[in-house]
Amino acid sequence: MSSEQGSVGIVETQYYTFAEPPCQLELECGRKLGPITLAYETYGKLNAGKSNAILVIHALTGDAHAAGRHSPSDRKPGWWDKMIGPGKAFDTDRYFVICSNSVGGCQGSTGPSSINPETGRPYGLEFPMVTIGDMVNAQKALIDHLGIEQLACVVGGSMGGMQVLQWATTYPDKMRLFIPIASTARLSPQAIAFDAVGRHAIMADPNWNKGNYYGANSPSSGLSIARMVGHITYLSDTSMHTKFGRDLKDKVTPDYDFVTEFQVESYLNYQGDEFVKRFDANSYLYLSKAMDYFDLSQPEGELRKGLSAVQAAALVISFSSDWLFPSYMSKEIVSALRRNNVDVSYAEIQSDYGHDAFLLEFDTLSRLITNFLEYAGPRNSDER
Amino acid sequence: MSSEQGSVGIVETQYYTFAEPPCQLELECGRKLGPITLAYETYGKLNAGKSNAILVIHALTGDAHAAGRHSPSDRKPGWWDKMIGPGKAFDTDRYFVICSNSVGGCQGSTGPSSINPETGRPYGLEFPMVTIGDMVNAQKALIDHLGIEQLACVVGGSMGGMQVLQWATTYPDKMRLFIPIASTARLSPQAIAFDAVGRHAIMADPNWNKGNYYGANSPSSGLSIARMVGHITYLSDTSMHTKFGRDLKDKVTPDYDFVTEFQVESYLNYQGDEFVKRFDANSYLYLSKAMDYFDLSQPEGELRKGLSAVQAAALVISFSSDWLFPSYMSKEIVSALRRNNVDVSYAEIQSDYGHDAFLLEFDTLSRLITNFLEYAGPRNSDER
Repeated sequence: MSSEQGSVGIVETQYYTFAEPPCQLELECGRKLGPITLAYETYGKLNAGKSNAILVIHALTGDAHAAGRHSPSDRKPGWWDKMIGPGKAFDTDRYFVICSNSVGGCQGSTGPSSINPETGRPYGLEFPMVTIGDMVNAQKALIDHLGIEQLACVVGGSMGGMQVLQWATTYPDKMRLFIPIASTARLSPQAIAFDAVGRHAIMADPNWNKGNYYGANSPSSGLSIARMVGHITYLSDTSMHTKFGRDLKDKVTPDYDFVTEFQVESYLNYQGDEFVKRFDANSYLYLSKAMDYFDLSQPEGELRKGLSAVQAAALVISFSSDWLFPSYMSKEIVSALRRNNVDVSYAEIQSDYGHDAFLLEFDTLSRLITNFLEYAGPRNSDER
Repeated sequence: MSSEQGSVGIVETQYYTFAEPPCQLELECGRKLGPITLAYETYGKLNAGKSNAILVIHALTGDAHAAGRHSPSDRKPGWWDKMIGPGKAFDTDRYFVICSNSVGGCQGSTGPSSINPETGRPYGLEFPMVTIGDMVNAQKALIDHLGIEQLACVVGGSMGGMQVLQWATTYPDKMRLFIPIASTARLSPQAIAFDAVGRHAIMADPNWNKGNYYGANSPSSGLSIARMVGHITYLSDTSMHTKFGRDLKDKVTPDYDFVTEFQVESYLNYQGDEFVKRFDANSYLYLSKAMDYFDLSQPEGELRKGLSAVQAAALVISFSSDWLFPSYMSKEIVSALRRNNVDVSYAEIQSDYGHDAFLLEFDTLSRLITNFLEYAGPRNSDER
């Protein structure tokens, strides 16, 4: 089946639709949403006991395509292909790995660009605000649909890590292990500020038109700026020095104009241009706002209390140069879990890659995660 | 004369025009500019020996109005009023303090919003690219005009600090002391990236119209986004936690919409809205680009060589939480100057205010600077 060593091979995105009216999903904002479609992929085989399932949750702009290729000619495999496959950290010879696109997104799951069945037009801003909790509740419906009573592990980075923490809190007995990577129980005001600027740029784009741009020109200029801001926060000062320095693009002496000139400017422009081809601006608004709202220390303002329901064993991972989700945020989670007597391991990986390290530091991540899956929790013996 | 204790009182902005054709200023980009007007203010009295002049240089969006008030009803004094006045660090009972608005700016000095005498219309993008070196050369003309052979000190923060370093390099015998604060000999690629996003936002605003917006709607939306991005980089993660935390504005529970909601969002919006009332978008393009180009390690790529002409004694100051112009950049300058046997003192001020600390940490700054002016350099005795 596999054409590459360690690859899950050719995979297909699947779709699950649920919450059909009148049984819509009740959202945290008080509104209801349905029907909901989730795009998802699976790799490996669910065992007879249905005890070997691992849920992988993607970051802000990720999708369900975590591993393998959709066709042999695909230029790139899924976004976490180096982590998922035969013999890899999430070993598909042992585990049944599931990755679903978040509700509110734009890559196969129901979101603001989907058709609102009540109007026959795309939702736009009529789409209700979805929270990290709502995303997790939707995933739970998918896991139920797959007949899985308890997940072996829930894992994800960045916004995916937020969902991992929410899973462990809302559904404490539905997993044995959980791994939040480069994540936080609540964004810093600095991170909220960057998100706010991104949203501001989108909403300031005349093409945005209060979210009603489907079928017309999309606010690609604003979305591109949001992505550029985001990208700066995903890298570190050190990695930018290494990657670009102060080099000019294709020249040594400056042209003294406002055309893109430094390598780093060119990189950001490219990232912005590529992003608008694959992402919906309204989804960016909804998902970034969901991240901003997320705060597991609420309602009492104390993280230990917010995490009091957690039962599963945890491996918390952060990266030394990540200044968007700095290590101190992971340490807060570890400290709160330990005071609650949760079995928690913590690793701060030394890396210059900044927040993006969760998509790059495969060797260290693989070693840590392989060991954790192997040795953590007494109920791992039935996974083979 | 002074209505407030320690204040320079009521002051007036003055204007000096020079570089009239055919004697235009030759710019680093190879083009010529003239006539050039510089807006400037002075505080205190020039002594008979003309040896007590201190040049204060403002940051990116600052102006010539550094101290005092323009009228008794002015709500706020000049931007460094706590540093300049009778008995203050820059003691106007002893020193003659000069602050001029940079060429390329929009607050009284010649810049892209000025009338191009060749066309009778505002320059817009016909304005030539000005560098930090050009700004210093223009200031030098003003200092010559004032009849000052040698400055007692040149001081400034951020972009002002860059100009201070340029002064010490280009006109090494024209000052006895210099004080670059929260500055750098070259921006990091991360800082260039933030500048590039700001420029991108301005140029993406349909009102920008390739710089030809004078007399029409200005690109205030794009400029506001540039300012918001800038503001995040001027604060620190810690100061944002202290100032805003994750608080919502005027409420406890969220509204689940995209209206400004977090305190930090509201603050950024306000900063953006206020800024566009007082600043020209094209000037923002030119000045931020000048900062990006600035690199005293060029042409040889070695900072020690770039600073080899420096003679005056230096006090270099950085702030512990400044991540836009981090302390390591000031330390590079100090290290290069020491290897060149320049008399240099260095202080890293512990502060949570981030880059903005140079506009806030007055007590520590005053103590350091007062001591430095008092004791550094053998030729200080004739300043009274």
